Amino acid sequence: MPTPIDFYFDFSSPYGYIASHKIDALAAKYGREAAWRPFLLGVAFKATGQTPLPQIPIKGDYARRDMERTARFHGVKYRQPSRFPIASVSPTRAFYWLNATDPQRAKLLARALYAAYFSEDVDISNAENTIAVAAGLGLSADDVRAAINDQATKDLTRREVDKAVAAGAFGSPYIVIEGEAFWGHDRLDQVERWLATGGF
Amino acid sequence: MPTPIDFYFDFSSPYGYIASHKIDALAAKYGREAAWRPFLLGVAFKATGQTPLPQIPIKGDYARRDMERTARFHGVKYRQPSRFPIASVSPTRAFYWLNATDPQRAKLLARALYAAYFSEDVDISNAENTIAVAAGLGLSADDVRAAINDQATKDLTRREVDKAVAAGAFGSPYIVIEGEAFWGHDRLDQVERWLATGGF
Repeated sequence: MPTPIDFYFDFSSPYGYIASHKIDALAAKYGREAAWRPFLLGVAFKATGQTPLPQIPIKGDYARRDMERTARFHGVKYRQPSRFPIASVSPTRAFYWLNATDPQRAKLLARALYAAYFSEDVDISNAENTIAVAAGLGLSADDVRAAINDQATKDLTRREVDKAVAAGAFGSPYIVIEGEAFWGHDRLDQVERWLATGGF
Repeated sequence: MPTPIDFYFDFSSPYGYIASHKIDALAAKYGREAAWRPFLLGVAFKATGQTPLPQIPIKGDYARRDMERTARFHGVKYRQPSRFPIASVSPTRAFYWLNATDPQRAKLLARALYAAYFSEDVDISNAENTIAVAAGLGLSADDVRAAINDQATKDLTRREVDKAVAAGAFGSPYIVIEGEAFWGHDRLDQVERWLATGGF
């Protein structure tokens, strides 16, 4: 089996959420897996000097409309969260803690966290809400709470976020296939051709 | 015939150049015309506080690679210009001068200017180069030179750029269909569905 493609995303990113509905099927179509790698856009923005979309005049207004319309276009259930964007430290820590022992279940957790935030308006920046989502998948709330606050999980998360930024992830989603990077759900057409042809 | 769709672009924008190869056929497929409306991204960036892509750390490096790959993906001839980005005042003035009397020929001029810059590395920020491109279409070099320097053309261009920014154009291309805005060549799929369905 070839190496997985890397799927970097922020839990606070609507376009990452939209891509999360497609990336596994797209990879599987070409005999690949997608390694889900949440990161923190806020850390990347420090490297690039960028600003969260909603804070940018004019472009921010456009973006809000585009997020909702793009979700409709792709048939993805979407409800603009009351708080947006959010700091996604808690869901990212919960993900990497679970991912260390069970990557497939960690993907289920990531999907559930994304759905909670972007379709049910659950503020997953609140650790207790992240824990409740995890508990909904049958994980022990006490275990998840302990993991989120464990220094080892914090260190692991920091290392993974640093690796994402080192890999060039400046936005979300950011997909890498053997060193070739694609930014945005709207590059999935190019991702597909890259997977199909080996590069163009 | 329904009202035209608005196609805002900057002559220095690779993604505007790519979209310029598709927008007329896309509009015509749904019985529409595209009104080409070049503007100056530099003026829009003052309103949004944005920075030209190449100056943004990390993202700028990605963008350069993405521009070339995206042109290949769409089968558009592309050669990264030696000077990029450029101030596109001269080509924009030449366009609006001609557009006032002959919009169809103005489109041909816009295509020729885009091709010169993005496939032949001609620096069209230099007025004499813009004039030479226009002369290649059979226009009088003296007429174009006089027009570019005419206060009436300068005023017309300023008004059009102000109208573009007032319409929300913060990036290029920026397409508006009866008030609904789409930013980026990578929203042409949504533009098409919008034209086909009347909105979604």
